[in-house]
Amino acid sequence: MVTAAGKQRFLDAAIRLFARHSVAGTSLQMIGDELGVTKAAVHHHFRSRQELLLAVIEPVCAELLETVEAAEALRGRHARAERALTGFVDVVLGHRELLPVLTGDPGATELLGSHPGLAAVTGRMIGLLAAADPGPGPGGRIRADIVLSGIACAAAPGRNDVAPDNLRTHVVDAGRRTLGLRTPRPGRTTP
Amino acid sequence: MVTAAGKQRFLDAAIRLFARHSVAGTSLQMIGDELGVTKAAVHHHFRSRQELLLAVIEPVCAELLETVEAAEALRGRHARAERALTGFVDVVLGHRELLPVLTGDPGATELLGSHPGLAAVTGRMIGLLAAADPGPGPGGRIRADIVLSGIACAAAPGRNDVAPDNLRTHVVDAGRRTLGLRTPRPGRTTP
Repeated sequence: MVTAAGKQRFLDAAIRLFARHSVAGTSLQMIGDELGVTKAAVHHHFRSRQELLLAVIEPVCAELLETVEAAEALRGRHARAERALTGFVDVVLGHRELLPVLTGDPGATELLGSHPGLAAVTGRMIGLLAAADPGPGPGGRIRADIVLSGIACAAAPGRNDVAPDNLRTHVVDAGRRTLGLRTPRPGRTTP
Repeated sequence: MVTAAGKQRFLDAAIRLFARHSVAGTSLQMIGDELGVTKAAVHHHFRSRQELLLAVIEPVCAELLETVEAAEALRGRHARAERALTGFVDVVLGHRELLPVLTGDPGATELLGSHPGLAAVTGRMIGLLAAADPGPGPGGRIRADIVLSGIACAAAPGRNDVAPDNLRTHVVDAGRRTLGLRTPRPGRTTP
């Protein structure tokens, strides 16, 4: 019987190895070695590293969807963009160890780009952020892309020695500046 | 005899394969296959993919250094940050095919992080951008990191269908917003 905790051990090991060696540089054998089990034991749960990668990003995708739905339910483009930005930062800071894989690993990018759930939720997130300061042309979407990618890169482990709370304040502030959002007044912050 | 053009063929093939399969997923054999030569022929010029990666980033590193030195020679923190930002964008747009490797490939990140030239020039670039809006705490450096990473991600090939000139305008504008730089008045733009 495969317990959820048993599966999670494989996912945690995969995240560590993907971040260190990239997806293409990680074999099921290496994941087995990391956990002291055979490659066959890994293969019993996950047929390929692609299947592992998809299982690894599933919770991130679900949290992003929750954030996007909460933002889309608000009224006003500024409130929606603010909710999307702060929610995105919280998802990112909750999965810091995964960021090197999500932001630029070529072995992951192709697979993640073709993941219908992740592509759709990212598109809705970009739409919410771009609408903060709408205008003709692609400026809003380019700013949104820079904010999402830049924050995901800057929050990766080892990138700086700023404490998580302080990092959250500064990356949200940077995102607001880029997108043209004002700092919300105390007491009017959306949850 | 090895001509410069001969070496460049290997570098171009390496860039294509690194971007597609990540550094860890690219073997000297694959580079040989791409060019229709033997692995031994590749190995004759480059002993490892690490050596190839270093040769590939050498011109980027040299151009970033030129930009940083030109910016540091100016007077005034705004003029210096503006010069560093626009110079960085030009370097990035001149090497778009390399961006997936530079921004997040875990196999490249470790090696590039330990490259003394690239680490030093990146540190000076972050210092120039952070000084645009100085203040206590790490906010300036975090904004600079988000600008550099975000632009390098957003300008990667296939990320959007915006024409290069238009893309340049929008990413420079986004960088100025994040850093707190005004759009320079026409005629006063630094070269």
